[in-house]
Amino acid sequence: MSERREAPVRVALLGCGTVGSEVTRRLLDDADELAARIGAPVELAGIAVRRPDKHPDLPQHLLTADAGELVESDVDVVIELIGGIDPVRGWLLTALRKGKSVVTGNKALLAEHGAELAAAASESGADLYYEAAVAGAIPLLRPLRESLAGDRITRVMGIVNGTTNFILSAMDATGASYAETLDEATRLGYAEADPSADVDGYDAASKAAILASLAFHTRVTASDVHREGIRGISASDIVAAKRLNRTVKLLAICERVVAEDGTESVSARVHPVMIPRSHQLAGVGGAFNAVYVEAEAAGQLMFYGQGAGGAPTASAVLGDFVAAARNRVAGGRGPRESAHAALPVRPMGQTPTRYHISLDVADKPGVLAQIAQVFAVHGVSIAAVRQRDKHSTASLVVVTHLAPDAALQATVSEISKLDVVREVVSVMRVEGEDS
Amino acid sequence: MSERREAPVRVALLGCGTVGSEVTRRLLDDADELAARIGAPVELAGIAVRRPDKHPDLPQHLLTADAGELVESDVDVVIELIGGIDPVRGWLLTALRKGKSVVTGNKALLAEHGAELAAAASESGADLYYEAAVAGAIPLLRPLRESLAGDRITRVMGIVNGTTNFILSAMDATGASYAETLDEATRLGYAEADPSADVDGYDAASKAAILASLAFHTRVTASDVHREGIRGISASDIVAAKRLNRTVKLLAICERVVAEDGTESVSARVHPVMIPRSHQLAGVGGAFNAVYVEAEAAGQLMFYGQGAGGAPTASAVLGDFVAAARNRVAGGRGPRESAHAALPVRPMGQTPTRYHISLDVADKPGVLAQIAQVFAVHGVSIAAVRQRDKHSTASLVVVTHLAPDAALQATVSEISKLDVVREVVSVMRVEGEDS
Repeated sequence: MSERREAPVRVALLGCGTVGSEVTRRLLDDADELAARIGAPVELAGIAVRRPDKHPDLPQHLLTADAGELVESDVDVVIELIGGIDPVRGWLLTALRKGKSVVTGNKALLAEHGAELAAAASESGADLYYEAAVAGAIPLLRPLRESLAGDRITRVMGIVNGTTNFILSAMDATGASYAETLDEATRLGYAEADPSADVDGYDAASKAAILASLAFHTRVTASDVHREGIRGISASDIVAAKRLNRTVKLLAICERVVAEDGTESVSARVHPVMIPRSHQLAGVGGAFNAVYVEAEAAGQLMFYGQGAGGAPTASAVLGDFVAAARNRVAGGRGPRESAHAALPVRPMGQTPTRYHISLDVADKPGVLAQIAQVFAVHGVSIAAVRQRDKHSTASLVVVTHLAPDAALQATVSEISKLDVVREVVSVMRVEGEDS
Repeated sequence: MSERREAPVRVALLGCGTVGSEVTRRLLDDADELAARIGAPVELAGIAVRRPDKHPDLPQHLLTADAGELVESDVDVVIELIGGIDPVRGWLLTALRKGKSVVTGNKALLAEHGAELAAAASESGADLYYEAAVAGAIPLLRPLRESLAGDRITRVMGIVNGTTNFILSAMDATGASYAETLDEATRLGYAEADPSADVDGYDAASKAAILASLAFHTRVTASDVHREGIRGISASDIVAAKRLNRTVKLLAICERVVAEDGTESVSARVHPVMIPRSHQLAGVGGAFNAVYVEAEAAGQLMFYGQGAGGAPTASAVLGDFVAAARNRVAGGRGPRESAHAALPVRPMGQTPTRYHISLDVADKPGVLAQIAQVFAVHGVSIAAVRQRDKHSTASLVVVTHLAPDAALQATVSEISKLDVVREVVSVMRVEGEDS
């Protein structure tokens, strides 16, 4: 296509770690190709890093320690790869208010202050893109926001944290304990020295908030997301899952819940789940991410790819950058955030879930009746029961139908106090049909 | 978000079959939700059908038999779901030249005249979207065009035709012949009375042309795509694949091929392929579609979902419609087509492929040496050989390394003439690593 050559699109880069270095390399090395795709040349105007003297490999004249000044300078697009909330939030608000488009992968910031950033972008007519914030290289947010914009999304469920998926995959493969496996993951560089953001589900909860917001046109923040991590997963949980031909995954689940009276709400949660081994998400191993989307018309969709790493994340960042730069050149802008549906967020206790409960019980008549009575009292319907003798105790596995999570919690709590129950071996939510 | 209410976006629908009816229903039933997403109300201005009297269920005042007049009327967006090249091509060119945005799922038209349509859109500043043309509901074209716009796509490979996938899945499951399975597929409504567009690979070739054009920023037409269908697949091919723990799929494969001197070209082809059963595409059954994308930075991605059907295809159409309508309201436009790379299309003979060749040969010494010599003469390197005695003949299976397709063809042709070769049982290209 013959595009006339335009004034360059000037870009500022904030942060230059693993992803930033890859973004810089591609901005410089692929300048001609990017210019052809954008319709104007790209000029890297500056790179803000904490310690410019620590980056001998980068073009020295581009480096600055003053991110604030770089943002205020004559740039069109700001790419932010520093992470964290402050002081980044202020810089990005400044950029957006001045009409500079922002590309960021900062999930924590977006999950807390996404509404404020979107409003600033909307007011000035700038673009705010953040494909890299969820599921790394996988094109997921643009499909949710644009491709499915004429459909009604009912569910987004996926593996969005590579560290916990690596640990759970390894526990499933080796039978080792959580602690041993975490040590191994740390040694291999799959887990941080302080793994809390990953293993306690904070990272996945931020991503769930972003996904739920886009999918349901509703502002959902990280604090709206029910969050349980994987520290409590034991080798016996893994064994219990295997007995049912299931495996354990940490899933982010965002659902549109329709009550009997037709009123709608949104549920967003992160917790370990037993899924059938035949489920498409079960085969997603190691540090890969996969997200399953259900929409009324489209039906079931799945997106799969690398969820982290310098090059994959840079791919998402540069895709957003090209979109923002094209809009600069063409004089338009991308679709805005929309929270027009403003659905209420459903508390976890009222969210319908299904439980798998594995118990060691006394091996005598009437035990099942006694336990079943507790389920009945709490209005929880039982889908399947399996019993197995084991020395003087018996092993009892119960899988429920959907019930409010609070009713299931209360049922488990009461059952654990029964005299006939020797041990509650494993309690976990389940997703997916049994095959 | 507070959007001011704008003048309505007026939309014309051309064609009202399975997909069109679903689009109409959603445009009317979900009018409020669509208006909120677009920022302006939507007005369905007219529906062009061949025989208005055959559509008693549609709003009668909207029906017209004159598509040309409807396109020329005061509408902002034209949704075309008639299919075929003429007279649709003229209507869409008229619409685009008058600055009306076009949403279409017409793969045959796009694969032949995509460049002409894109040029018309580019000149008038209108949008041309066609997510529904490839892989139904799966958001695929927008990710290729936008999400991966900052990356270098090296390969797009997928199952893009549900009919042939249904037939091959069934042949694999039952061991039945192609003819029997086609009959069954026709009875069940998975194959048309005249199945040629599907089983001879025309449909997949159109889609491959569209995918290659977007992925490689190069204009590729359907006639550039090497095309082989599935009519020649026999039960013995399926058996041969099973022996290697592989299965047979009809794949559309688009590759960026880099020659030793660094020059690049594009290969686009549709043909049956043996892939390992462990490959992600192997598990895609029935009428589902799945497309695997490799990019330099992003690595491996996969997109999965329903490839056809009224509601899934309507989802893609409506996503495009919302994008086009938003651009109307915001005064911008979506990213244009770009064929700036203009890479040459590599002839099939020069495209590197790998072959699986299964032979019945005389059971005597020296046969393998004689056959291996033919491979050597043509410069084809052998990756693996398996031999098996079978009464007075022996079964010999050869899997090659990558070689130019013409060299492989010549090798097979010469081998089939050897006295020691009783029968060429199966010849098929292979993709994917052996597990």
